[in-house]
Amino acid sequence: MAKVKKQIEEPIILITNDDSIGAPGIRAMVEAVVGLGRIVVVAPDKPQSGMGHAITIGHPLRMQKVNFIEGVEAYTCSGTPVDCVKLAVDKILHRKPNICLSGVNHGANHSINVIYSGTMSAAMEASIEGIPSAGFSLLDYSMEADFTAAKIYVRQIAELLLLKKKDKHLLLNVNIPMATPDMIKGIKICRQAYAKYQEEFDERKDPHGKNYYWLTGEFINFDKGKDTDVWALANNYVSVVPVQFDLTNYELKAKMEKSWKL
Amino acid sequence: MAKVKKQIEEPIILITNDDSIGAPGIRAMVEAVVGLGRIVVVAPDKPQSGMGHAITIGHPLRMQKVNFIEGVEAYTCSGTPVDCVKLAVDKILHRKPNICLSGVNHGANHSINVIYSGTMSAAMEASIEGIPSAGFSLLDYSMEADFTAAKIYVRQIAELLLLKKKDKHLLLNVNIPMATPDMIKGIKICRQAYAKYQEEFDERKDPHGKNYYWLTGEFINFDKGKDTDVWALANNYVSVVPVQFDLTNYELKAKMEKSWKL
Repeated sequence: MAKVKKQIEEPIILITNDDSIGAPGIRAMVEAVVGLGRIVVVAPDKPQSGMGHAITIGHPLRMQKVNFIEGVEAYTCSGTPVDCVKLAVDKILHRKPNICLSGVNHGANHSINVIYSGTMSAAMEASIEGIPSAGFSLLDYSMEADFTAAKIYVRQIAELLLLKKKDKHLLLNVNIPMATPDMIKGIKICRQAYAKYQEEFDERKDPHGKNYYWLTGEFINFDKGKDTDVWALANNYVSVVPVQFDLTNYELKAKMEKSWKL
Repeated sequence: MAKVKKQIEEPIILITNDDSIGAPGIRAMVEAVVGLGRIVVVAPDKPQSGMGHAITIGHPLRMQKVNFIEGVEAYTCSGTPVDCVKLAVDKILHRKPNICLSGVNHGANHSINVIYSGTMSAAMEASIEGIPSAGFSLLDYSMEADFTAAKIYVRQIAELLLLKKKDKHLLLNVNIPMATPDMIKGIKICRQAYAKYQEEFDERKDPHGKNYYWLTGEFINFDKGKDTDVWALANNYVSVVPVQFDLTNYELKAKMEKSWKL
């Protein structure tokens, strides 16, 4: 009996970020996964850091095919990172990609940063769509950052995501310490540290005598746990936090059901 | 022995929204809580729906004291709902308010909307700061919506938040059905339903022949549970979902620790 060889379709890897198509981090991401599938890049046309899960409702979006890296299909979008994912699925791919990778972000997205991060929100949007996803961030804000170590872990985790087809809402927040590959001790699966920013707006006067304010803030970690992403990174591990979009506080829910009079 | 009567300080109630200071919903919110404390309104100067947890990093913010409702201190901010909360704490109140209320939003913020909603993100930002908070949304997008029922529940829940001082990260997502007070059966404590939007971008051509895209989408609820916010609202209950900002997926974390080779 003749065996019919099954045609194995090349997986589609959607890549986006929040630092825009011009950032070295997204270039490093593409280079890291070359050969794993058909790579399609859909990234913001300008920096979108701190955009969180914003979507563009009040005005329309533009999208443009651009030259990027040879052999890689690439588009820019005038909207937010979440818009990029939505547009990619509906108007470019016309199907769900097999996995979605966001980043590599220039700067940390550990702990509470997951809430503000456009990088992580893009990955979360894909995860809502049932696409296994990961956001990657390097603890180096510089545009001259060295992505050598980051690329090793991007590839390792991308390969894993391509295998884990059963976990369709799989969403990982991966942070890579600013270190050379030989300094990094490996990967730690972590929980999100309890930390926040202590804001202090920088108040200035414009040439017309009116006040304006720049957001600045100091990062404060309140969490002494050794199972957190902040701890792992401080100890030269790559931190991997599995993330979810069900924000229900089940513990508080149980407490309220028991003791609140509503 | 003479009893020293303790000076009871008036609680500060911070009110914000994402529909802007001009929306009827924020006016209804203020009216609902008159008499419960010193009310301070800090709201966006223009609509900020769908802004999620966005913050303004790349350009400075403006803030302006405005006339609003007699006896109520009010300011507009040029930024996002989250910016409003940060500015209010640092530059207006110079302390944390006792509670923060966000809304009343024109339109539902149940289920997955919690992720995209500027209304809920403002409340979450306050919760990160340790301020008991709630976001309120009425299932009526109209600017002529009737807030009669909403006001009853805003006041009831605001009174409760003022009492629950021990739960400093208390954060509630409250949705009110489009119904008269006598039609509403009461409050249900719920979990976030698993639902999402099926996107379909409306593709158009500008007068110069170039494409542009409007985000549109159909809401699809995959969750048949009777303990969800979507179910409660469809059955004329006010839904209250306790929300958290620790996004760690602990179930997946345990599974990964057991079976992933990293």
